[in-house]
Amino acid sequence: MLRQQAESCKRAARQLAWLATAGKDRILLHLAAQLRQRSEELLSANARDCEAGRQAGLSEALLDRLRLTPERIEGMALGAEQVARLTDPVGREVAWTRPNGLLIRKVRVPLGVLCIVYEARPNVTVESACLAIKSGNGCLLRGSRSALNSNQVLVKIIQECLMAEGLPAEAIAGVADLSHESITTLARMNGLIDLMIPRGGAELIKRVVETSTVPVLETGVGICHLYVHSSADLEMAVPVIINSKCSRPAVCNSLETLLLDELIAVELLQRLDPELRDKVVVRGCERTLALLGWGQAAVAENWDSESMDMILNIRVVTGLDQALEHIQAHSSGHTEAILTRELEPARRFQREVDACTVTVNASTRFTDGGEFGFGAEIGISTQKMHARGPVGLDELTTYKYWVEGQGQIR
Amino acid sequence: MLRQQAESCKRAARQLAWLATAGKDRILLHLAAQLRQRSEELLSANARDCEAGRQAGLSEALLDRLRLTPERIEGMALGAEQVARLTDPVGREVAWTRPNGLLIRKVRVPLGVLCIVYEARPNVTVESACLAIKSGNGCLLRGSRSALNSNQVLVKIIQECLMAEGLPAEAIAGVADLSHESITTLARMNGLIDLMIPRGGAELIKRVVETSTVPVLETGVGICHLYVHSSADLEMAVPVIINSKCSRPAVCNSLETLLLDELIAVELLQRLDPELRDKVVVRGCERTLALLGWGQAAVAENWDSESMDMILNIRVVTGLDQALEHIQAHSSGHTEAILTRELEPARRFQREVDACTVTVNASTRFTDGGEFGFGAEIGISTQKMHARGPVGLDELTTYKYWVEGQGQIR
Repeated sequence: MLRQQAESCKRAARQLAWLATAGKDRILLHLAAQLRQRSEELLSANARDCEAGRQAGLSEALLDRLRLTPERIEGMALGAEQVARLTDPVGREVAWTRPNGLLIRKVRVPLGVLCIVYEARPNVTVESACLAIKSGNGCLLRGSRSALNSNQVLVKIIQECLMAEGLPAEAIAGVADLSHESITTLARMNGLIDLMIPRGGAELIKRVVETSTVPVLETGVGICHLYVHSSADLEMAVPVIINSKCSRPAVCNSLETLLLDELIAVELLQRLDPELRDKVVVRGCERTLALLGWGQAAVAENWDSESMDMILNIRVVTGLDQALEHIQAHSSGHTEAILTRELEPARRFQREVDACTVTVNASTRFTDGGEFGFGAEIGISTQKMHARGPVGLDELTTYKYWVEGQGQIR
Repeated sequence: MLRQQAESCKRAARQLAWLATAGKDRILLHLAAQLRQRSEELLSANARDCEAGRQAGLSEALLDRLRLTPERIEGMALGAEQVARLTDPVGREVAWTRPNGLLIRKVRVPLGVLCIVYEARPNVTVESACLAIKSGNGCLLRGSRSALNSNQVLVKIIQECLMAEGLPAEAIAGVADLSHESITTLARMNGLIDLMIPRGGAELIKRVVETSTVPVLETGVGICHLYVHSSADLEMAVPVIINSKCSRPAVCNSLETLLLDELIAVELLQRLDPELRDKVVVRGCERTLALLGWGQAAVAENWDSESMDMILNIRVVTGLDQALEHIQAHSSGHTEAILTRELEPARRFQREVDACTVTVNASTRFTDGGEFGFGAEIGISTQKMHARGPVGLDELTTYKYWVEGQGQIR
């Protein structure tokens, strides 16, 4: 059953692959209009999911992620319109002619079939489908059981928009089998699925990475550090630190661990104290707690986990070397930042830190497709192969070479 | 022990990562000179390997791959000089400024540590090391026991050239443990090794792909097809087919299966008969054998294997649809070719065939870094993620984002 869905998705994806940009954009704009028009239907399906969730005892945080509102539906519609405005990567080519007359064309093409595995949020359904459509890829959507009713209506609307443009509905499909095992089955469908994209918590991502034989785009886990060098502008440091930690603690580019150079630790902790007190739980090293006079003692696993909450780890370090060592040991390869007024430590930090984004004198929160100017993204890749950093339309494609001759032999 | 080697390679690779281009080129040119100067030492070490191989009963084909000659040593030296002339990808960047004043720099950086797993050929040692050095990567070379003496001398020479430039020798290291299990151990060293590159036969590649948790660059297996459309220029077809099959049958871009449109099968087989007879073993479908009057009957597994020999599978098909179906079922994603005088079948073939190279009216043998104009390559990638087609210096790097601000918050 799962295999049949994947096979028909792959077949349908071939028709989507070379659909002209105008056709893809019509589907997206039609989808935006339909989402707005059918918001009542969506809200009532979502109400059933939320009610079931409440009865099943889902936490308020999870219920909030599950919930649709008129504003959130409008957000999905605006998202579809935004993707329609993005440049289509498919068919973009560079070409050159060899001395023997062969024309070599390197042409951007869709990957084939994406499989998105995600948790409660129904907006991921629409976001993923829009990026798949614009990049010419088929898409298997494996959402969670808790959002079943919402996702069914959303996929139905998306499929109707595909059909209105003469495309097979199966190109974007909701996976019918939501059993625990279906994730592993999907993750081993080499030849049918080209890329697995888990979108959700660290547990989900880990599970897909570990069981998958299909390539996985590893996104999301952000154990982000900010190191305040002895030369830093402390006036600038306070708002940057507070923004990095507090503006949206549940996202991957928020700050987890603050590393303070011992030369500025006393003064900076004094300045930070009123900003953190009563708002942020501090888990500090011994020196931090002694200087601050409050906070919890950090334990080993704190340095290696993403809190997603108003919790900040703080460690006083002896200098750049110890900061680099700490980051090398605990970084998840997402965003690492330094505050400094000197060129040399900034340069060394940029070169030696092995992460998708290395930020100098700014908040960690800028690692984001929108903030980089890419438009919509499907996540932040923390791996080095294929895509690193914000994953947009370009990264959802590959390329092939078209070699054109007149009978050349070698 | 293996882990220690990988750790010291990773540490050493950090120094290689940002070595200026001039320094890397000096190492490569010095290496070329040393290979020429020390050819006696190399030949005598290699003679010991060949003698041991003969006593162990290695086939003549394997002994030939193992053997070094003054010409082959000169070839390695020329190869090192060629890599020195290639453009250095490391540090190349695109940068843009956001409305809030943030400067975003997307900078090309080395992957980190490559691990090459290969078989008898000692020239792979030098080729891989040269590409690793120029791309700023550390490199663990896991060669075969049969080439032990040759590889030891080669690695010693390479390491002396690194040290002459003030770099730690461990950046390019010959793996000391050549047990069967060492491949699997290496393939699971996530965090120390960034990319596994198996270079050799299908068996070796399959083994690395199946056991590896480190990303693998899958190269090499080429089950290449050539489809002769009914509109093809048959005058052109004969030399293109013969060149694709016979010019070097043991390489991955040579032809395995010829698909003949039924409308031109009679005439083309007549023209091919004298060219193939007594030179090439034909494994044909029923119609092919009936038309040709000689050859062996193809069995199912023939369509799915790479012969590496003067063996050609031939099948008569009813047209483009059946050809596409056959290729979809049996392609290894390497090179697929069509001969046609019409635009529409050429265009459909290019779009629908899912392979790294799709060739129109030319020999399959052009899928090659040199022929594409890329210079040296480490293999032909048959996967879609990260690198597809010839893998040169660019594909041995990744990128990271350097974000530079003046205290921006979000």
